[in-house]
Amino acid sequence: MPEPYPIPAAPAAARAAREPFDVREVRLGRGFLGDWQTRNRQATIPHCIARLETSGVMDNLRRLVGESDAPFRGMLFADSDLFKTLEAVGWEAVRDGAPEFASFVDDAVRLLALVQTDDGYLNSYYQGPRAGERFTDLPHGHELYCLGHLVQAAIAWSCAGRGDLLEIALRYVELVHQIFGPEGRDGVCGHPEIETALVELSRHTGDPRHRELARRMVELRGRSLLGEHGFGAGYFQDLVPVREAREATGHAVRQLYLLAGVTDLQLDDPAAGYGEALAALWGSVHLAKLYVTGGLGSRHRGEAFGDPYELPPDRAYAETCAAIANLQWNWRMLLWRGEARFADELERALYNAIAVATSVDGRSFFYSNPLQLRTGHTHEEDAPSRRLDWYACACCPPNLARLLSSISGYVLTRTEGAVQFQLYAAGEFDLGDGVTARVETAYPWRGDVSITLDRPAVTDIELRIPWWAPGARLVVDGAEVPVPGPGYVTAGAGARRIELTLPVQPAWERAHPWVDAVRGTVAVRRGPVYFAVESADLPPGVSLEDVALTADSRLVDRGWDEQLGVPLLGITDVARRPRPEPLYERAGERGIRDGGDPGEWSPAEVTAVPYCRWGNREPGAMRVWLPTS
Amino acid sequence: MPEPYPIPAAPAAARAAREPFDVREVRLGRGFLGDWQTRNRQATIPHCIARLETSGVMDNLRRLVGESDAPFRGMLFADSDLFKTLEAVGWEAVRDGAPEFASFVDDAVRLLALVQTDDGYLNSYYQGPRAGERFTDLPHGHELYCLGHLVQAAIAWSCAGRGDLLEIALRYVELVHQIFGPEGRDGVCGHPEIETALVELSRHTGDPRHRELARRMVELRGRSLLGEHGFGAGYFQDLVPVREAREATGHAVRQLYLLAGVTDLQLDDPAAGYGEALAALWGSVHLAKLYVTGGLGSRHRGEAFGDPYELPPDRAYAETCAAIANLQWNWRMLLWRGEARFADELERALYNAIAVATSVDGRSFFYSNPLQLRTGHTHEEDAPSRRLDWYACACCPPNLARLLSSISGYVLTRTEGAVQFQLYAAGEFDLGDGVTARVETAYPWRGDVSITLDRPAVTDIELRIPWWAPGARLVVDGAEVPVPGPGYVTAGAGARRIELTLPVQPAWERAHPWVDAVRGTVAVRRGPVYFAVESADLPPGVSLEDVALTADSRLVDRGWDEQLGVPLLGITDVARRPRPEPLYERAGERGIRDGGDPGEWSPAEVTAVPYCRWGNREPGAMRVWLPTS
Repeated sequence: MPEPYPIPAAPAAARAAREPFDVREVRLGRGFLGDWQTRNRQATIPHCIARLETSGVMDNLRRLVGESDAPFRGMLFADSDLFKTLEAVGWEAVRDGAPEFASFVDDAVRLLALVQTDDGYLNSYYQGPRAGERFTDLPHGHELYCLGHLVQAAIAWSCAGRGDLLEIALRYVELVHQIFGPEGRDGVCGHPEIETALVELSRHTGDPRHRELARRMVELRGRSLLGEHGFGAGYFQDLVPVREAREATGHAVRQLYLLAGVTDLQLDDPAAGYGEALAALWGSVHLAKLYVTGGLGSRHRGEAFGDPYELPPDRAYAETCAAIANLQWNWRMLLWRGEARFADELERALYNAIAVATSVDGRSFFYSNPLQLRTGHTHEEDAPSRRLDWYACACCPPNLARLLSSISGYVLTRTEGAVQFQLYAAGEFDLGDGVTARVETAYPWRGDVSITLDRPAVTDIELRIPWWAPGARLVVDGAEVPVPGPGYVTAGAGARRIELTLPVQPAWERAHPWVDAVRGTVAVRRGPVYFAVESADLPPGVSLEDVALTADSRLVDRGWDEQLGVPLLGITDVARRPRPEPLYERAGERGIRDGGDPGEWSPAEVTAVPYCRWGNREPGAMRVWLPTS
Repeated sequence: MPEPYPIPAAPAAARAAREPFDVREVRLGRGFLGDWQTRNRQATIPHCIARLETSGVMDNLRRLVGESDAPFRGMLFADSDLFKTLEAVGWEAVRDGAPEFASFVDDAVRLLALVQTDDGYLNSYYQGPRAGERFTDLPHGHELYCLGHLVQAAIAWSCAGRGDLLEIALRYVELVHQIFGPEGRDGVCGHPEIETALVELSRHTGDPRHRELARRMVELRGRSLLGEHGFGAGYFQDLVPVREAREATGHAVRQLYLLAGVTDLQLDDPAAGYGEALAALWGSVHLAKLYVTGGLGSRHRGEAFGDPYELPPDRAYAETCAAIANLQWNWRMLLWRGEARFADELERALYNAIAVATSVDGRSFFYSNPLQLRTGHTHEEDAPSRRLDWYACACCPPNLARLLSSISGYVLTRTEGAVQFQLYAAGEFDLGDGVTARVETAYPWRGDVSITLDRPAVTDIELRIPWWAPGARLVVDGAEVPVPGPGYVTAGAGARRIELTLPVQPAWERAHPWVDAVRGTVAVRRGPVYFAVESADLPPGVSLEDVALTADSRLVDRGWDEQLGVPLLGITDVARRPRPEPLYERAGERGIRDGGDPGEWSPAEVTAVPYCRWGNREPGAMRVWLPTS
C-alpha cells in the first residue's frame, strides 16, 4: 500500500498533466477561503453532526444493533449524510487531528463496524426496513452511491492515520467485487458516485481491481440495465453508452458525478478512450447549460438539465450538490488537461453557486439556488426564499462540509519543474524543495495578490490569469513581467517576491443570444463574483420588478458591508419603470423595440450585493439579471 | 322536471346577466368554427371511440360483467374518457341524432347499467383492481371527478331525448348525497369537476339538492380535508377557503374547473358570496398568469400555475384541458357579469391554446402546448415536437371532442329585448321571435361579418367589439353606426342587414415588463389569432434562434396555405444574428443595451403561420415570441 496522499481525487502519479498538493502543504490564512474553511469547522460541521442525530441518521444505525428502537427515518440514502460528514471531519483531522470531533467519530465508526454484516454489507435501509432486499433496486436503491461516500470518507481518515474505517469500506468493496465484478452480475447504480470513489480507492491502496470495477460500471452504463424511468432513461444517464454521449442530460448531480468518475478513469489511463465524450460533454455543459453563477440544472422536474440554452433564472434548480459536482469534475479535467478554463469554472462555481448555499452563520443552507425570486413568490415548498436549517433530503449540507474541509487541496497544482497557483487565497504554502510561500491577498474582493517566498523558488511559478482578467499585471522582484492574457503566466525559478494584480473592477455581462430567458438584461460581475439586487435594498413601496437600468447606468464601488462581510456595489441612474395593467398590449405605437416609458425616479441608485450573500436579511425579491430597459 | 335546455351550463333562467342559446338554434356553416365542428364529428369523435377500445377503457367495464378478461388498463380515472366521449356524441345527437354512433352509445350505456351496483356506485377502477376501497382516497381517487363527467354526459343525452344515462347518473348521485350530504361525511374530491356538474344537474332536473351539495363541497374546500400534498395543499386548492382565495394556485385544470363550479353557484344565487373571490382570481389568472395564446399553467412540475408573471414560453405546460377549462369558466363569468372581456378571453383560448391541440386531420393531439420549441430539443417525453395519436393520460382528446360538439352554444347570448353576438361564425341562427339570421364571414381570417335577417329584428342586436379591434366599423341597413370602442355596439330593433368590419391587420404585441421570460421580444397577432415562426419555413442551415427582427421589420399578408388551411404572414427585414461561442461575455464594449452585431442576411423575409397550425409539417423548432434584436 503506497504512502497515503492526503488530497481528494489524487490521480495516479505522473499520468496527469497537473498533480495536486497534499492538503497539509496548503495552510489557508484569514480571507474569504480561509475564513470559510474556519466557519465550516466551527459552525457547519458541528451543525451537521447535531442534525445526524435529530434527523434519525444515527438512530437508523443504532436500531440495527439494539441501541435504539426508533423507526427508520429519512431518505433511503440517509447513511450518505453520515459518510459525507465523516469525510468532512476526516480532512480536518488530516491537518490537526480535529480532536473536538473525536467522540462523534469514534462512536460512528464503532456503530458502522457493529452494523456491518459478516459478508461486508453495510446499509441501514436495506438492513432495516428493506432487510433481505439488498441490490434488488439498483435504479433507485442508492446502495452503491452510499458505498461510494463511505469509501471517500474512509480514504480521508486513512490519510489522517486512522485505518479502521478503511477496513470497513474495503470489506464492503470486496463484497461488491464478488457481486458486480467480471464474474458477477452486470449492474450499475441509478445514482453515480461509486465510480469516482473506486478509482480513488485504487490510487489510495494501489490495488488496480477497484479501478477496473469502476471501468466496468462505466462501460455498462447506457445499455438500459436500469430500465425505464418516468423522466426517460436519460434521467440516470442510461440512454447511450458513456463514450458515445455528446450532450449532458437528466439529473444534473448524477450526470456530473458520473463525469467525475469517467475523468478519473481517463486521468489514470490515457488509453481509456473517454476523451472525445468528455470534451463534448464539457462543451455541452459549459457552452449551453451553465448558469452564470456556476449553477447547473434548469428544471425542477427531474432535477435535470434542460435543452441547450434553456436557462430560466427564476426556475433554476441549480442544486448545491450539482455545483459541487461540477467543481469536482472541473478539478479532474484540470488535472487531466492542465488548461486554465477548467480552473476558471472551478472558481466560478466556488464563489457563486457554492458559496451562496450557506448562510453567513454557517448553519442554514439552500438546496436549490435560483437566480431570481419574484415579488409575490408563493412557492416556498418549491424554492424557499431563505436558507433552511436542514432538509428531508439532506445531501447538500454535508457535501458543503466535506468540500470546504478539503478546499485547500484545490489551490495549487504542480508539474515537473513548476507550481501552478489555480486559486488565490491568503496563507502559507509549502511549494516543495523546502520553499514556503506566504500569500497575502483580499481576493476575490481585491485583485492584488502578493506572494513572498522564504527562499528563491527552485521551480517556475505559474499564475492563473482568469478569463475575465485582461489587463492583469505581474511584477517579479520589482521587474514587470508581460502578461500574455488569460491562461498562465510564469515567474521563473529564483523569484522571491511576486506581485500579481488582477483587475476586479465591476463589469456588465450579457448572455448568449440563444439564452431567451435573460434577453434584454445584464448581469453584474466584479472579478469572479456575480452580484444580485435584493428588495431589501430598495426604498419602501418600490418593487424590484419595476427597476430598470438606463443607458447612463454605471457601476460604482460602495464600500464594505460589515453584516454580510462583503463589498457592495452601487448601480447609478436606474429608472423606475411605470407598471402597465394589461398583461399583453399592442406594441406598434412606439415600434417593436420599445419597452415602454423610460419612467421617472431617475437618476436613482440601487445597491447590489454579492450573489453568494443574498437572502441573509429579511426575505424578499432578488435578481441577478437586470433589465436594460 | 323542466323542459331540458340543450346547452352546456345553462344557468337558472332570469338570474344571469346573459342567457345562452339552445345549441339547435345555432347552426354553424362552412368556416373555421363550422369546419372544426364537422372535423370533430367526422374524425376526432370516431378516433376517440376507437381509442376507448385500444386503450382498455371499454374492457375495464366489460371485465366487471364477465365480457372481458383483460386486466385493468389506463389511469384510475379512465372512465372519464368514456364519459367525455359520450357527452361529445350527445351534443351531436341533440342536433340530428348522430345515428352513426348509435351502436357505440347503446353498448356503452348498456355496459354502464350492468356495471352499476345496486346502491348506484359506478367506477371501473374502484370496482375492479381497488374493489372495496371506494371513497377511501378522496385526494387522488378521482371518483367524484369521474361522476361529474358522467353527469354532464347524461345531461347532454337527456337533452337529446335519451333518459337512461341520466337515470344511471342520478342513481349514483343519490348515493353521493347519502355519503357526502349534510348528514354524511365531510369530503371533497382532489380533482374538482363534480361541483359544476351538480349545479348543471339542478338546472336540468329542477332539483335544488344537487346545487346545495355542490355548495357544501365548495364550502368544505380549503379546510385541509385533503391533507398534505408533495406539491403543497395549494396543488388541489385546499390551502384557503374558496371565498378567501385571491391568487390562482396549484394544478391549473383543477383550479379552473373549481372556479367554473363556483361561478355556477354565484350565477344561480347572487347571494352566494363568491363574487369578491371570483373577481380577484379572474385578475390573478388574466393579468398575471395567462399565456398570450390563452394557455395556462407555467410549470410541468405539478402541472401548475407559477408565481405572478412567471410565463416561460419554452416550459409552458399550458395543458389543453386547462385552456378548455378557462373557456368554460369565462363562459360562466360572461353569463354572470355580461362583460365583453370574458368573451374576449373565451375567444383567445378558442382560436389559439385550444385550436392548436388538434392536428389538421383531427386525429392527433397536443397535451401540453408550449410557445417555444428549441433547435436541439431532446425532451420528447416532456414536450413532444409533434401531436400524438393518444396519451396514457388521455383527458385532453375527448375534452376537445365534447367542447367542439357543443361549441355552437357559445356563439350567442340573449337578454330581455336583446341578442348578443359573442363569437363570429358563418351559419344560420334562430334569434327567437321567428327571426333567423344568416351570417356570412371568413372570420377569424377576414374581419368582415355580414348578418342578414329574414325579417326585421324584434330585439336589439348587440355585437361584441374585441379588445384588439379599435377602428371597427358597423353599417346597419346601409347607415353607418358609430362604434364606441371595445365592448358591445348595438344594431337596434328593425335591422335587416348588419355589416360589421373588424380590423384584422397583423400587429406586434409585447408583454408586461414583469414577464421576464419574453423581454426584448414581440408576438404577432392578426385579429384574435397569434402566429408562430417554424424552422420548417427557414432556409436550410438557418437556425430559428439566429433570426431576429430589425427596426425595419414589417408584417405583410402572404396569402393562403392550402395544406394548413390558414393565411400566412411575411415578416420582412429580419436579420440573421451572428452566433457567439461563449455562453456569457462582457457587455461593456457596446453598452448594456447592445445585443451583439445586427448581423448580415438582411433584408430577408420569414414566414409566420397561425400558432394553432404549427407542428403539422416536419418536426422542428418553433417560437411565438420573436427577438427584436
